[in-house]
Amino acid sequence: MLRTLAGKFPKENFLYVGDTARLPYGTKSPETVRAYSLQVMEFLFARKVKAVVIACSTASSQVLERNYHSIPVYNVIEPGAKFAVRTSMNGKIGILGTRATIESSAYERAIQRIRPATQVISQICPLFVPLAEEGLCKDPITDLAISRYLGPLLQHEVDTVILGCTHYPLLRAAIQDYCGSEVRLVESGEAVAEALAEDISRGGLPVSEIEKRTIQILLTDYSLHTAALVKTIMDFHEISTIGKTELSNRA
Amino acid sequence: MLRTLAGKFPKENFLYVGDTARLPYGTKSPETVRAYSLQVMEFLFARKVKAVVIACSTASSQVLERNYHSIPVYNVIEPGAKFAVRTSMNGKIGILGTRATIESSAYERAIQRIRPATQVISQICPLFVPLAEEGLCKDPITDLAISRYLGPLLQHEVDTVILGCTHYPLLRAAIQDYCGSEVRLVESGEAVAEALAEDISRGGLPVSEIEKRTIQILLTDYSLHTAALVKTIMDFHEISTIGKTELSNRA
Repeated sequence: MLRTLAGKFPKENFLYVGDTARLPYGTKSPETVRAYSLQVMEFLFARKVKAVVIACSTASSQVLERNYHSIPVYNVIEPGAKFAVRTSMNGKIGILGTRATIESSAYERAIQRIRPATQVISQICPLFVPLAEEGLCKDPITDLAISRYLGPLLQHEVDTVILGCTHYPLLRAAIQDYCGSEVRLVESGEAVAEALAEDISRGGLPVSEIEKRTIQILLTDYSLHTAALVKTIMDFHEISTIGKTELSNRA
Repeated sequence: MLRTLAGKFPKENFLYVGDTARLPYGTKSPETVRAYSLQVMEFLFARKVKAVVIACSTASSQVLERNYHSIPVYNVIEPGAKFAVRTSMNGKIGILGTRATIESSAYERAIQRIRPATQVISQICPLFVPLAEEGLCKDPITDLAISRYLGPLLQHEVDTVILGCTHYPLLRAAIQDYCGSEVRLVESGEAVAEALAEDISRGGLPVSEIEKRTIQILLTDYSLHTAALVKTIMDFHEISTIGKTELSNRA
């Protein structure tokens, strides 16, 4: 997500907060996910950002897309749903997500608001996050999990599948292999980038023209394993700093 | 663990705190695990417990077994190591654990303090916690993970394996199937119960003679899925209350 947005908006500064001290969110209750998300958002607001992107579907499913303290907050649900509806030819869309995301029905509702006749088939994929975090992107265990989760979607003949969790793009190649090339996979990164670009072109968001922008990554828990994982996911040459932060420290 | 201890000490009250809002601990850094563990311990101290058992190997690997505010704190490392050394005939012991537990070398050091000549083979099992939490105790995906993790231990001809994480006993039957009956699996519950019983018989811990004891379970995050999981793990008829708590609320 950061990589996609940073590539699309080369003159904008980015401040990324990863709540590694409390992840995963996807197995936790809606109340806890909401409380954690709002804490991270407040941390960003205090740093005078001009917009916040909730780059996590589970958090997105619990936080409304609207202005907070006059700062626009984007989540991945609306853009992902829009993108999927536009992509699907046969009106059958599959959604892969964490337990919290799927149980919230957020994607389903967003899709059906746009095109009510769409058939949505949802699938909780609890093993995908740990598999991605272990770097098992190409592995027989991952293939077995993929066939378990994707099998039912293919039986329903979906032609579009939303990778409804920021971790899932790491498994994209293996998922695509299983589905075949006729099924289109939708990632939230592209979809959110498009939504932001639209708002900028409409004048809804101020444009920055910084010559040398910075990309800062802050994690609430920092270990060698986490740092390695961040490098795998972010794979972005332009990261200025990567460090640890406390959410309560809003200095 | 709670089940084992509650069965072994039928006249003692139990207060169990599950930090479900921040689990898993096993993927987090030593600093964060230590900070979380001390918070939970302080919460229990404030409630005037007479002893604390750290029923999590990851937390145990980061907290010394000693008195805090004159309250004895037990962890699972020492008792588990002692039990395993006594069990092993060939002096080759395997340890299964989370990344944080294995990287701490806590079990290894404890075993080698007791019997320096022991050969210890350690294995990080990152998928076991999510598999157990998903209830996949008997499943082809679990079998594949077991053969991945246990294969190297069997090649080293271990005759004893420590299930070094409170979740792993849920996978015990499948692990035993894979290892064969000649390999003995060590659970921390039994080992800690033995250590407590020894201290009680030595007069190191006051005995209670309550007629109708209570067992209280407090979770920092409470969802239907968590509640169902707790019931699976605890499977104990005598639970008095199960509810949600905030760690900062020490009332």
